[in-house]
Amino acid sequence: MKYFEDIQVGDNYAVGRHTFNSDEIKVFARRFDPQLFHLDEAVAERSHFGALCASGWHTAVVWMRLMVDYRRAAAEVARARGEPIASHGPALGFRDLKWLKPVYVGDTIEYKSEVTATRPSNSRPGSGLITVVSTGANQKGEPVISFISTVFVERRPEIP
Amino acid sequence: MKYFEDIQVGDNYAVGRHTFNSDEIKVFARRFDPQLFHLDEAVAERSHFGALCASGWHTAVVWMRLMVDYRRAAAEVARARGEPIASHGPALGFRDLKWLKPVYVGDTIEYKSEVTATRPSNSRPGSGLITVVSTGANQKGEPVISFISTVFVERRPEIP
Repeated sequence: MKYFEDIQVGDNYAVGRHTFNSDEIKVFARRFDPQLFHLDEAVAERSHFGALCASGWHTAVVWMRLMVDYRRAAAEVARARGEPIASHGPALGFRDLKWLKPVYVGDTIEYKSEVTATRPSNSRPGSGLITVVSTGANQKGEPVISFISTVFVERRPEIP
Repeated sequence: MKYFEDIQVGDNYAVGRHTFNSDEIKVFARRFDPQLFHLDEAVAERSHFGALCASGWHTAVVWMRLMVDYRRAAAEVARARGEPIASHGPALGFRDLKWLKPVYVGDTIEYKSEVTATRPSNSRPGSGLITVVSTGANQKGEPVISFISTVFVERRPEIP
């Protein structure tokens, strides 16, 4: 991953995509969000969702998984080129997480992130902070989730 | 669950508690947040966390599970008393989710929620909106997670 100094407002990341199948929707819901419209097709059809759909938390944590994979792949590319790899993270939380539409069985969600602000960190002089807006959109292009996170990113070491 | 009219600012919910063991921390992380400090004790000891700790997302989704169980238990009590059960949800998202401290293996997190605002819904005349601040604290009383949610709650039907 890039150093703080090499990251600009407007930078985009194609984080990845994921198709939600009914088995994984139910496995996640059974463990973490056992509301019947995430578990039972017949109940879901009669609910305000109209069909089986993923827990909103499931939609969120799939972003996390894809982001870890994305960072790892970017680090491998940098390593292969002999470039240094700046550390990113930890995230301290996120703001304004919105579930905009349900994610139904068979939907493919494409996740993207965009840098909207950068600033040096006061608490960690070796790091900067980048603010990132992340979104997931379904195969019709409809946004289903969005949230804003602020993450520490390593600064380029000063050459003495 | 109560109708909107019966919910007051300051109402508290003892959502539940959960002890995080290393197996479940790793199972969650392997699937959704495979960073090594959530998967490997030796790597975690050398990281800024100092020991194996749960993914922040894991800490969040355990709250969701406990909240579903809490609502179900409350609905059963109401049913046994012959009281009506108002529908709660869906949540449209969250604001200001903060991971305040790591959750280490063996930590017991106690989750609480408190109503901080109530208002009628403009978009759904049959519902009100309640704003709830939820927190999780470890066995030392240290907050580890907090977030704010706004949820639709059914209004008491008017008696004609």
